[in-house]
Amino acid sequence: MTESTISQESHAPRRGSKQPTFLADSARVDSASVSPLPASRKVFIEGSRPDIRVPMREISLSPTTTRDGIEENPPLLVYDTSGPYTDPGADIDIRRGLADLRRAWIDERGDTEWLDGPTSEYGKRRSEDPRLATLRFDLKRTPRRAKPGRNVTQMHYARQGIITPEMEFIALRENQRRQQIGNEEVERILGHQHPGESFGARLPEEITAEFVREEVARGRAIIPNNINHPESEPMIIGRNFLVKINGNLGNSAVTSSIEEEVDKMTWGIRWGADTIMDLSTGQNIHETREWILRNSPVPIGTVPLYQALEKVGGVAENLTWEIFRDTLIEQAEQGVDYFTIHAGVRLHHVPMTAERTTGIVSRGGSIMAKWCLAHHEESFLYTRFEEICEIMTAYDVAFSLGDGLRPGSIADANDAAQFAELETLGELTQIAWRHDVQVMIEGPGHVPMHLIKENMDKQLECCDEAPFYTLGPLTTDIAPGYDHITSGIGAAMIGWYGCAMLCYVTPKEHLGLPNRDDVKTGIITYKIAAHAADLAKGHPASQRRDNALSKARFEFRWEDQFNLGLDPDTAREYHDETLPKDSAKVAHFCSMCGPKFCSMKISQEVREYARDRGLQGDEDAMRRGMAEQAEKFRDSGSELYKEV
Amino acid sequence: MTESTISQESHAPRRGSKQPTFLADSARVDSASVSPLPASRKVFIEGSRPDIRVPMREISLSPTTTRDGIEENPPLLVYDTSGPYTDPGADIDIRRGLADLRRAWIDERGDTEWLDGPTSEYGKRRSEDPRLATLRFDLKRTPRRAKPGRNVTQMHYARQGIITPEMEFIALRENQRRQQIGNEEVERILGHQHPGESFGARLPEEITAEFVREEVARGRAIIPNNINHPESEPMIIGRNFLVKINGNLGNSAVTSSIEEEVDKMTWGIRWGADTIMDLSTGQNIHETREWILRNSPVPIGTVPLYQALEKVGGVAENLTWEIFRDTLIEQAEQGVDYFTIHAGVRLHHVPMTAERTTGIVSRGGSIMAKWCLAHHEESFLYTRFEEICEIMTAYDVAFSLGDGLRPGSIADANDAAQFAELETLGELTQIAWRHDVQVMIEGPGHVPMHLIKENMDKQLECCDEAPFYTLGPLTTDIAPGYDHITSGIGAAMIGWYGCAMLCYVTPKEHLGLPNRDDVKTGIITYKIAAHAADLAKGHPASQRRDNALSKARFEFRWEDQFNLGLDPDTAREYHDETLPKDSAKVAHFCSMCGPKFCSMKISQEVREYARDRGLQGDEDAMRRGMAEQAEKFRDSGSELYKEV
Repeated sequence: MTESTISQESHAPRRGSKQPTFLADSARVDSASVSPLPASRKVFIEGSRPDIRVPMREISLSPTTTRDGIEENPPLLVYDTSGPYTDPGADIDIRRGLADLRRAWIDERGDTEWLDGPTSEYGKRRSEDPRLATLRFDLKRTPRRAKPGRNVTQMHYARQGIITPEMEFIALRENQRRQQIGNEEVERILGHQHPGESFGARLPEEITAEFVREEVARGRAIIPNNINHPESEPMIIGRNFLVKINGNLGNSAVTSSIEEEVDKMTWGIRWGADTIMDLSTGQNIHETREWILRNSPVPIGTVPLYQALEKVGGVAENLTWEIFRDTLIEQAEQGVDYFTIHAGVRLHHVPMTAERTTGIVSRGGSIMAKWCLAHHEESFLYTRFEEICEIMTAYDVAFSLGDGLRPGSIADANDAAQFAELETLGELTQIAWRHDVQVMIEGPGHVPMHLIKENMDKQLECCDEAPFYTLGPLTTDIAPGYDHITSGIGAAMIGWYGCAMLCYVTPKEHLGLPNRDDVKTGIITYKIAAHAADLAKGHPASQRRDNALSKARFEFRWEDQFNLGLDPDTAREYHDETLPKDSAKVAHFCSMCGPKFCSMKISQEVREYARDRGLQGDEDAMRRGMAEQAEKFRDSGSELYKEV
Repeated sequence: MTESTISQESHAPRRGSKQPTFLADSARVDSASVSPLPASRKVFIEGSRPDIRVPMREISLSPTTTRDGIEENPPLLVYDTSGPYTDPGADIDIRRGLADLRRAWIDERGDTEWLDGPTSEYGKRRSEDPRLATLRFDLKRTPRRAKPGRNVTQMHYARQGIITPEMEFIALRENQRRQQIGNEEVERILGHQHPGESFGARLPEEITAEFVREEVARGRAIIPNNINHPESEPMIIGRNFLVKINGNLGNSAVTSSIEEEVDKMTWGIRWGADTIMDLSTGQNIHETREWILRNSPVPIGTVPLYQALEKVGGVAENLTWEIFRDTLIEQAEQGVDYFTIHAGVRLHHVPMTAERTTGIVSRGGSIMAKWCLAHHEESFLYTRFEEICEIMTAYDVAFSLGDGLRPGSIADANDAAQFAELETLGELTQIAWRHDVQVMIEGPGHVPMHLIKENMDKQLECCDEAPFYTLGPLTTDIAPGYDHITSGIGAAMIGWYGCAMLCYVTPKEHLGLPNRDDVKTGIITYKIAAHAADLAKGHPASQRRDNALSKARFEFRWEDQFNLGLDPDTAREYHDETLPKDSAKVAHFCSMCGPKFCSMKISQEVREYARDRGLQGDEDAMRRGMAEQAEKFRDSGSELYKEV
């Protein structure tokens, strides 16, 4: 699914490109990603044991000035994906990587063993190649694997009734401490929240660790956290939790260095990416992945088929189960948290695409279709699926079952090929679940608005509520250059209908490689979609941030308005283009109406009037009181605003 | 509704601002707006008489190269709002204005008379002021008005069973000549179109002039075209037609000149604005409006209250019916096509806003609320509504009944104040219709996704299917700087549900004045929303452009892909950032996968294989054929792609 949005150029020429000159010894963190966001500080919520420390971002707000004095506005806690990078107390050195905060939890379970080193052929070869010494991340530890006969997936624990520290961490994280400020108090200060329409999602007022366990046991949610990626802060993907977003990155032989990819990762999580997919191709992708994993506080996903294809020189027919299997182990031992696997492309599906407008557009899907055509056999991804499951259980890698036959155009949406594959993905889900392997399902693609809900409903039905993870969908094909928007519309809608994670699309989709600005635009667009979905579902407390921002807007607390937004930097910059002076940021007007007449001001007066007279909620009394007001105004003839 | 998205700064300081030095004698057209779009030419569809010439943009496409030879791709006709500016055959001189193409149609009806000059007090004063000579548009004609006792609205004609040339023009325009290329032929070349979900909209395969007449007579659609704006190309707003979009502009005393506003108009219609609202304030707004009207091929809307307020020095309480009435006549005689009038704000509604999170955010609404409070009377907009209707009938100005109490935050969506006003707007609609005055209804604002449909349904019910015209709605408050996106989501959805016109929101919403880039971003975002809505409704032939673009994409016809998009310039620029060479634009790969492996290529092969063997549509035969294919592949071991 995700594979078309990325940096995958292999041999294409590029203006100004040069060979990367990356040297591990001098690798440094991207300075743009390490300062806290404005007016924000990192806070930690401690769980039942001191090593469960859930990071949150606390945005502090200025007080409201009323005629009666000062009224404090409580700070707002928001979900924080940025990891230690935005913590001034953290000592960041990407050469050392992040702390392995889950190490003790994994140790305690006693079901894993340390290996002597990589067990994959390819992993061994790379670790022993002296020419790679200058590129290689200096990892001091060896990989872990489940002890023989053990299953180390979170689903396995959940089904045995075990609440892991990961689950408790997630419960605290999803709650955002909303119980600690009571709903009544919040409503008094910030206003009410609309009841939502959740389409059957269960959204309890308080997320307990037991609820997390139940959802994982049932397969309705996944916790992607490989035992070899102990640096990750646990998070969950499921429709009964906050809607998540994924951002893609990936190097290419020609255009970017390892350091640039680490930069894209830290940049992406700064703006809110919940997971990152590393879709690198070309040179040194094993080493690139290592650097990303060791420095990523969010789960990392990959499409192992891409690397396997590289290993056979790009010739799809030459792919074998053995090469693919070795690649899975190689990546699992590095710590990849979820694998996109296109096991749903079956031989008899391929002819169904012959009359499509845009055929097969998934890279993984077309590789496997070609393999199937060439061998006239079912793919090894399908025939070896149980063996793949066994590998997944040994490291706790989650499946992201790829939709190799997703539509690449509006015309091909919801067609027989797409839904036939979805049914196969449902069968595979049941097989994975028999192994206690976590599964999510990838989805389209290009779908007009009125066909989106059918996708969601059919996925829930075919895949027995396994989480859905979609690319967009794009709601029209006619806007190359703006596909973050064509797809943001569809993403918001499918998120509302029940999609658990939205894979971002950047403005460069279909046209080229996203740069840093494109990555940010894609992330912010998808944060909007995910949040709009949470609001529409009626996710508890999700409206607090909207209410806090709107209150700040109404009260002309400009700095608070910027800081509560998804992108304070851009909001401030846009404001300052018109009104750059600092005094304008405390002004009781904005550039739209100017100081002469302000619509916000008149409403404030209506309210103050009601408050003064204790008339709130009593419209009859209010009406009577307004007669007096009318007299007063007529006498004074004065304007309400004050020139600044 | 529309009033908060605009350039309305009156006295706010601005960096680098200077007094405009506009001189009518030297005014020139914006050069960026006068060249045809790439690969496009202006074509005209002639109606039943030679002066009905409906402009369209024809995008020519390159042929498809197959192994059997060349297959032509028919050109695509698209709806064209850009007027003569993109016609190389037109002689553009904004000092003379556009040709008055509707003049003969108005003349023939024989129900209007030429006035000696403006009849409004203000209009007279301005036309006689020698200090304005250098600013003034040199209009050679005087205003027209209905003869005493006559009603010149399109609704009036429609109800008498008269099909006007305007109606015939619109029927041709909406059809986009789709009957001339049969659906079967299109389907063969471009692929099928999905049946839509229209939620009760009637979308006939062919729009006839009689259908246009019926819809206007019924009040389900409006044709905004003042008899004093004969330069306009007729268009229609109604849910049984293509979804339209509006762009706002407006000068302010400090920051922009008349010429800049004309530039924004030509720029906005180039990218697809169906109507433009001129929300100017400050200096010389009468003259600015004249320049815009004389050069605009699209209908122009205004909020007359803004100018009336300027006339009383910005003091709302000092507004009077007489001043407002004079303003209506002033603007009607200039040719404004629709007036936003906030007549639905009633005295008893005001207290309903006291406990809102963001009170009254509509500028027009707050002006009237303040007036009502100060006088403790119903507003003159409400009490004098029938008199306003009479003015509208004399010039054929349409109502855009303003939603003065629209929600300014998610928290305030769908509240009692908003819906109480909507009910009043429904009552006013019936009054206007008794006068045969055309009406559309303005709508929110800020609304979470799950409450959008209630707005649409309630509007249809309260206002008896009068067209709905909404601002966004914004689906979350938390993304200042990205409100084109938060609102584009809501706009697409409400367009699908039945909204007839979408008022754009730019990235600067809530923060500052949109510049030229912001205007373009807003327009393109809203073109996406409107088109996504047309697709979802199943508007006949709306999917042709998607299909043509996707076919071009699949066949690596890069130039066609750019040219079929809403913004060819940006698409080309993004592509060229990665692959600038001309050869890359005929390359059978793109920067995402590179030449080594291309997912599009494999699908093409599947299709060609099927075609060669006549297996299309016969999956069993296809499957058998694939066995042979498999052998062939295994023998050759060759890759499918060719290095370029």
